[in-house]
Parts: sequence; structure tokens; C-alpha cells
Amino acid sequence: MITDLPAVTVGIDFGTLSGRAVVVTVADGTELGSAVHEYRHGVVDAELPDGGPKLPPDWALQVPQDWRDVLRHAVPEALAAAGVRPEQVIGVGTDFTACTVLPVTADGTPLCELPALRRRPHAYPKLWRHHAAQPQADRINRHAAREGRPWLARYGGRISSEWEYAKALQLLEEDPEVYALTERWIEAADWIVWELTGAESRNLCTAGYKGIHQDGRRPDADFLAGLDPGFAGFTAKLDHPLSPLGAPAGALTARAAAATGLPPGIPVAVGNVDAHVTSAAARALDPGHLLAIMGTSTCHILNSDVLADVPGMCGVVRDGVVPGLWGYEAGQSGVGDIFAWAARTAVPESYAAEARAMDVSVHELLTEKAAAQPVGAHGLLALDWHSGNRSVLVDHSLSGLIVGLTLDTRPEDVYRALLEATAFGTRTVVEAFERAGVAVTEFTAAGGLLRNAFLMQLYSDVLERPVNVIDSAQGPALGSAIHAAVAAGAHPDIRAASAAMGRIRRAAYRPDPDRAAAYRELYREYQALHDHFGRGGSSVMHRLRELRRAATAG
Amino acid sequence: MITDLPAVTVGIDFGTLSGRAVVVTVADGTELGSAVHEYRHGVVDAELPDGGPKLPPDWALQVPQDWRDVLRHAVPEALAAAGVRPEQVIGVGTDFTACTVLPVTADGTPLCELPALRRRPHAYPKLWRHHAAQPQADRINRHAAREGRPWLARYGGRISSEWEYAKALQLLEEDPEVYALTERWIEAADWIVWELTGAESRNLCTAGYKGIHQDGRRPDADFLAGLDPGFAGFTAKLDHPLSPLGAPAGALTARAAAATGLPPGIPVAVGNVDAHVTSAAARALDPGHLLAIMGTSTCHILNSDVLADVPGMCGVVRDGVVPGLWGYEAGQSGVGDIFAWAARTAVPESYAAEARAMDVSVHELLTEKAAAQPVGAHGLLALDWHSGNRSVLVDHSLSGLIVGLTLDTRPEDVYRALLEATAFGTRTVVEAFERAGVAVTEFTAAGGLLRNAFLMQLYSDVLERPVNVIDSAQGPALGSAIHAAVAAGAHPDIRAASAAMGRIRRAAYRPDPDRAAAYRELYREYQALHDHFGRGGSSVMHRLRELRRAATAG
Repeated sequence: MITDLPAVTVGIDFGTLSGRAVVVTVADGTELGSAVHEYRHGVVDAELPDGGPKLPPDWALQVPQDWRDVLRHAVPEALAAAGVRPEQVIGVGTDFTACTVLPVTADGTPLCELPALRRRPHAYPKLWRHHAAQPQADRINRHAAREGRPWLARYGGRISSEWEYAKALQLLEEDPEVYALTERWIEAADWIVWELTGAESRNLCTAGYKGIHQDGRRPDADFLAGLDPGFAGFTAKLDHPLSPLGAPAGALTARAAAATGLPPGIPVAVGNVDAHVTSAAARALDPGHLLAIMGTSTCHILNSDVLADVPGMCGVVRDGVVPGLWGYEAGQSGVGDIFAWAARTAVPESYAAEARAMDVSVHELLTEKAAAQPVGAHGLLALDWHSGNRSVLVDHSLSGLIVGLTLDTRPEDVYRALLEATAFGTRTVVEAFERAGVAVTEFTAAGGLLRNAFLMQLYSDVLERPVNVIDSAQGPALGSAIHAAVAAGAHPDIRAASAAMGRIRRAAYRPDPDRAAAYRELYREYQALHDHFGRGGSSVMHRLRELRRAATAG
Repeated sequence: MITDLPAVTVGIDFGTLSGRAVVVTVADGTELGSAVHEYRHGVVDAELPDGGPKLPPDWALQVPQDWRDVLRHAVPEALAAAGVRPEQVIGVGTDFTACTVLPVTADGTPLCELPALRRRPHAYPKLWRHHAAQPQADRINRHAAREGRPWLARYGGRISSEWEYAKALQLLEEDPEVYALTERWIEAADWIVWELTGAESRNLCTAGYKGIHQDGRRPDADFLAGLDPGFAGFTAKLDHPLSPLGAPAGALTARAAAATGLPPGIPVAVGNVDAHVTSAAARALDPGHLLAIMGTSTCHILNSDVLADVPGMCGVVRDGVVPGLWGYEAGQSGVGDIFAWAARTAVPESYAAEARAMDVSVHELLTEKAAAQPVGAHGLLALDWHSGNRSVLVDHSLSGLIVGLTLDTRPEDVYRALLEATAFGTRTVVEAFERAGVAVTEFTAAGGLLRNAFLMQLYSDVLERPVNVIDSAQGPALGSAIHAAVAAGAHPDIRAASAAMGRIRRAAYRPDPDRAAAYRELYREYQALHDHFGRGGSSVMHRLRELRRAATAG
């Protein structure tokens, strides 16, 4: 009997390298099925699919068709895996990496899909970790500080090079023709909803965190003209009514229904950010409950009823995560990415062979080798800035550092030092919130790195507090499904839906007092290096970046 | 006819991992044949051959039988390869790594060969790069500075933990029983001559550079008692008349003749140090001519008629390289060792496979990949202190550092940054001499790293001066053969023998002005990091070393 079949929603999560869909019951969030689709082009950081100039360092692009392919493949596969009938699906929600942003025409066509622009790098979506707009971000920050713009404090005193304005200014200055053809400058989070509903919508979350939308306004034309006369009218490319989180953006079009196998006409939740939507999945919406989504990078989400200036946070947005609270975001630009770099470049042949023989990944092998030694035994200390520093320094010209190397240093020593460095980076963020008067009373981890139990224990030891974990392997997608349930009216609001459908395992890891004490000493050393290289004691990282730019340009 | 056969000498060079013998004509140094013998035990840094306690970090020992095996294997093989008759050989000379030092009985028996002491680490020879006596060296330095001992300035203001007194003090404090049984504390350079002649001799070179022998004296008993009451009489374990370089130490014993295939009774030159003896081989004996012997570490030798206090030099010894001049020594503790560390630990499987497919070494592959990029393009800067810093900081608790790492950093980038760091280290040494008023008018390179032409060009670019190279693959052994020819009376003195038998290729590399200018900028950054981490701006390296010591002891 159809009436016996539970109502479900579909959540679709668009990550850095792949997208995944999950089908869950709206009653209690039971995951019935899921599917993953890898992007064919992944991260485009060397050359465009159709050729064209070699991309400079720090560039990172994506290809919109890869995202459409997730809708075409992962959604029907997830439905099949769940064994549900289409008519059971009452809503669909999505989340995306951010700030991943693209230039499109007035009808939503990505400029990179216009035949004339296929070989123009600036016509492509710029992935969140495209870091080549740092000079533009620096100018925005200096200009805003000089002009005393009040919104600057909402972003810890610095706008990131990853966000909408810096990336757009780089576009204007480096390819004004493509800038002129850009009728809409849109977050991928909103673009994918456009694909599903056939109409533009804009969500309040990315507008606030990535688009400098505060207290109902964006930066004015005077301010923008001060950056570049041609930039004065930029905001027109963004303007659109903003929808609150959990609201329906529209109904699924027949075309999107045909592509996905979902029923036409069901509500599509407004766009959202992968990290932010995970708070609902992890039941981490209460004030003081910090959620760390740990993957290639880490994003910290924290709700509070207090509005404070937290130096170096990424942003604070009213209703930015859940209506009625101030939503804080902070982040670490490189985490799993850094571990992957080490596993890719700094692991000898014999280790690769050993991992194969043991039938484990290189990461697992390195973790096992690294885990045996006592705290401090490798003699190393690292700065986790291989991908720059998002919080609390907000500076993507910074770079990674390792000190303490000897002829005895082994690959697992370097690997462990990198794991530790990211934990120290997390502690730096937590302490910045607390010093600013925003309490952090609970710490919950989510994301792909949860599967490394040694790493999670290390975080508990370094943070000197219990670490809860999300009890789902599909954090963001589950969060999107929760938002879909709200958009479909199955729950009255996000907090109620989260309580019913979210999953958390409390105090999964507890700090060991001896290790915590030893890490405290190393953390002090980390702080000293952090401040020396990050706060102007030495600007060697900036000069090396400049030399690199000059050398590769020449 | 025997009278037509040229007179030859045999030089034997004892390195870190192997020993080699070369047979050369005394008339013009023509190399007739050579042979290498690898030490069976190499560097003992984990556990003793016969078991016993696990060695702590920073330890490095050797096994005397490995050295004897060089006499038994390499010498007869070199004679055979040269095709000479024993009666052509008119003398033999040796050189050794230094300070490699061992405890022996009054008859020259190494204590580690006494059955009761086989499992006692302190009974074994301590290799030059045994760095565990740093606390003792620190105390010697503080005590000497407090007491205003004039000899301290002859060592750049610091006695190294690698040398005779620090290593002996560690022996006394950690294993007083073995210390008490030590009748003679002798450089391996002198011990091997003892093996050949059957009688103890001591050379002026190691006594001066490694044994604090200055102006005819060693540190007095009062000074030593101030370090440890039990150390007051230590000098008695060293005392012996010192022989000038190039003199005969004695005649080859029948036993040694039988082992080596050399004729009994021929003169054996006094012991010498591998680096110092190479100056003769490279015709680099004139005042102002700096010789860099570049292998696992680099040693700089420079003769001058000026006596000056050069901060951080290793030592200055009257007649220490050649009679009549002040011989200066400086050094870099890790050079080829650091490159080998990178090739061993930081090169992925795919590179190893690529090197095999191309039939080149991993070093050659990395060099080829690294060489293509312009100066500064990798964005990295390293400190070459993986094995501590011998000059100009004289501090073995320092460690290696790499800054500028990004997710794009490739193994060849790190490798090139390490090559560059060692060149910057060399420039630091050259500038220290010049600032102190000791002119450096010529720069010649010798040693195993000569075979890397990219590296040599890099040194020329970084130093901004032409680089000469020794024109022999057997530098130290050729130098020992030259000293043997002097000991045998075939030439009147070392400088005459060097002029006749030595080999140099002048200005083999010349600086490229553009690269030199680019490196000048990077060198300034290197200097800033060098001073920050090496001169007290941050003592994080020392604290990491301490934490490591505590963690591994606990």
C-alpha cells in the first residue's frame, strides 16, 4: 500500500571533487540510500578542458557540466539504492562548496558554455579555493578600513580572496570583456537551484557570508568605484530578493524531474553551503555548539545569541545558519588537502608497496606508523598554511612551514606533524571565539576525516575537551535533506527538523591528560611561529610568494 | 726492466660509508688504479652489531674492523687495478673522517673489541657526526667563556660537540667504567696509522682542529676539573709528541704488509683529515684559496698568512694544513646527507619508477626536473640544518626548516630548495671569512657532489664567483698519496708535491648575472631566517630538540 510508504526527502551535496545524493525519511532521518558521482574534470588548475592558456599558480576552476552530471547520475542511483518510489519524495535540497562562483547570462547559462568563451579562464566558475584574487582582496580590505566601513568587522576585519567581490574584481581587471558579458554573478549554490527550478533565487547564507550582505545592504557604488571605476555597478549583477534558509525556492521543473527521476513540482529548498547545512545534520544548532566540518578544508560553524567582533573569523550573519541566531563561520583553508599533499609527494616507494601489501591506504599506513610514538618524539612542528590561512589571519599568501627536520625524520613524522598542525589551527580558532566573548561549550566534528580515529583523538587531546562526532557518513547531504523537509512543510522549522532527523554521538573522544599537557607545550611553540610568520614578525612568506609570481610570469 | 717502472705511492681515504685506495705516480700524480670497499656496518645509529641497548637519537658509531677490511681489500685491489709491482710503491698515506675518535687500550686495541664491552655503546668509535654530546659541548663553551680561555677564539668562539673533548666528557658522564678503561683516546686518523706502523703517533692536524691543541698546549687540568672532577686528568689519554704533516710516522710492519700486499718497511705518512689533505690534491694551498669538499657534509679549508678571529669557524691551526701558514677550517654539517634524506623520504613511487625507466638515479631525476624552472619559481626557502650547523653558528641542536610549502609543491621543488639552502650556507661561510679580514680570492670545489653540474652552476650563481673544480675523482686519496710522496722524500715538501701531483680545472663554472641577481634576493631571506632561528630570535629548534629528547627517553 502506497500509504504505508514513508515520506522521504533527497539531499544533494556538491563537494570539491564529487557530488552525492542521499535519500532519508522525514520522520527520523533514516538513510535509505545514497550515491556518489565524481566530477569528470575535478579541480581545473593546470589547463582548461578545451585548451587555452596555462593557468597561473593559485587558480582553481570547475566545469558546470560536472555538476549537472551529479543530478543525472547520483540522484537516480540514490533513489534506486533506497528502493523508494518517486511519489514518496516530498522535497529536494542542495548544498554546495562556497564561495564557488560563476559568471552567467540573464537566463542562467554559464559563460564558459558559450562557444566564443570556452578558452577564456575567467569565463569558468572559480572554485572556493581559487586564491589568485589576493591582491584584489588586499585592496578591498585597505579601502574598507580607510573608509571605515562598518561591515568589515562582521568579517573579522578582512574580506577573503575566496569571496564574491575579490573574485569579481579580479575578473574585471584581468578580463574586462568577460566581465561585461557577465549578466549575473552567482554562487554555484544558487545556480544549481536555478537548474532545478528554472528560476533564479538567492539564499541568505551565501549572500551574507560570501557576498558582504549585512543589515539588508551590500557595499555601495561609491565604495566600489573607489576600487575601480568600472566596478561601481557590480552589485547589480547580484541583486535579487534573498530567501531565508529552509524556505522553498520553487518547484522542480519537468526537465529537472526527467533528468533526476524525481517527481515534477516538488519543493526545492533554497541553496545552502555544505558546511552550514551540516549543523542541522549534526544537531549542532544550539548557541555555543561549534561544528567543525573536516574535509579537504575545515569549516567551523557556531551559532550564538551574542554579536561580537571576533578577529579573523570568516563572517557573522544574522539568521545565517538558522533563523533567530547569529551564525558565525571560521575556517582552515587546508586540512585533508595537506594530508593528501604529504601522502602524494612525501611517501617513498617502499611505503606505497607496504600499504598495498597490507591492503590499506597510504593515509592509513602513515597514521599507523605515526600513532605509535609519544607526543613530541618526532621533534617537528608545522604551520598548516599550505593553502593559506582563512582563520584567524585571513591571508592566502601565507604558506606551509616545517621546522625540526633532521636526517632521521621519517615520512610518518612529517605526516603526524601536519595532523597536529591542523589541530593547533583549530585550537587557535576556538580560542579566538572565546577571547572575543563568544562561548564555545561543545565541539562536534563532521566530515570525511572522522574516519581517522587517531586524528580525532589527537584533536581531543590538543583541544583539551571532549569531541562529539556526527553519526552519519553523509553530513551535508543529510543536512540538505533536512532543509528539504522544512521546505516541504514536514517539520515546522530547521531546529525541529534537526532534532527529529539529525545524528550525533556525544563525547566520542575524550582528552588524555598526559598527552594534553604535552601538546600544550607544542601549542605554545605553534602560537609563537603562527604570530611570527602570520602577524608581521617576518613577511618572508609574502616575499617568496611574490618572487614565485614574478619568476613564473617572466 | 724494473728501473723503467715509475715510482708510485698509495693513498687510502676512510670516508663515512666506505674506504678507497688509489695508486698514483709520484712524478705527476697520474692515477694508475683504485678500489673501494664498503664498510659492512656503515654508520651504526640504531643498535650495535652484537645487540645491547637501542641507541638514542643523535648517536652515530662505527666498527673498527670495517676500517681494517679496507686495508685488506681495497689496497690489494687498487694495486692489482693499477698493474704495479709492490716494489714500485715507495710510500703510503692515509686520511680519515674527523673528529672520529675511539677509546683504546695502551696497545691500541679498541675497547669495543674486548669481549666484556661489546654491548657497551660508549666502547665504540664515535663517528664525526655523533651529535649526542651537545650538552657537554655547551658546558665546555660556557666554562671556557667564563674563564676567558684564549684558545676559544681559535675555534670561532665555540667548541663543537663533534670533537674530542665533548665526546670524551659524554663518555665519562654516561659510562664512567668504560672511561676508566680508556687508556688512549685517539682519532681514527691516528689509530689507522698505528695499525700500519705498529706504534702510536699523533698528527698535528687533528690535535689542533679537534683536540684543542694551540700554541703547544692543551686545556689544563684546572679547567677540566671545573667541568667534572673526574675529567681533570683527561689530557693524559691524548698526550704524545705531535708529528708535522707530510712527515713519516713510521715504517710499514710485516703484518700490515702481508694484509695489504704493500712492501714492508716503506714509510707511512702521519695521519691526516680527509678534507685537509684534499687541499694538496686540488692545488689549493695558496693563501686565499678556499677549498670546499662537498660530500655528505661540506668542509671548507683555507690557508692564510693572517691570524684572525672568524666567528663560527671550526678552527684555525698554525701549520694545520701546510707548514708555514694558518690553516682555517669551516664546515656545513649536512649537504649531500640532506639531499639523500630528501631522495629517500620525499620522493613518491611514480618518481622512483620514472628514474628506473630512464636508467638514472633518483638524484639525477630530481635534478633534471628541478633544473628547468627559473630561480624563485618554487616559492620555497630552506635552512640546511638537518644535521645541525657547524659554521657559522656551531650548534648541532638546530634543525632543518622549509617554508613556502603549498599544495602545488612538488618533490623536485623541495629538492631544489635544499640544494639552494646549502649554497646559501656556503656563501654565509665565505662572507664570515671576508668580514673578519681573511680574504677569499679563489673558490674550488671537490668531493662527490661535483658530479652534479646543475648544483655546481647553482653554487657559482649563488656565490657570484667562478667555481674551480678538482680534476680528480679521488680527491682525499690523491692528497694522501701526495703526503706519502713527501714522507717518502720524493718531493721536498707538500706544496712542491701538490704542484707536481695535484689536479685543478679553473673556472669550470661561471655565474650567470640574471640568476645571480635573483639568488641575491633569496639569500637575503635566507640570512633573515638564519639569524632568527640561529641567533636567538626564536629558540624553537632547541625546544623541539629538548621535547624530542624527553619524549624518547620517557
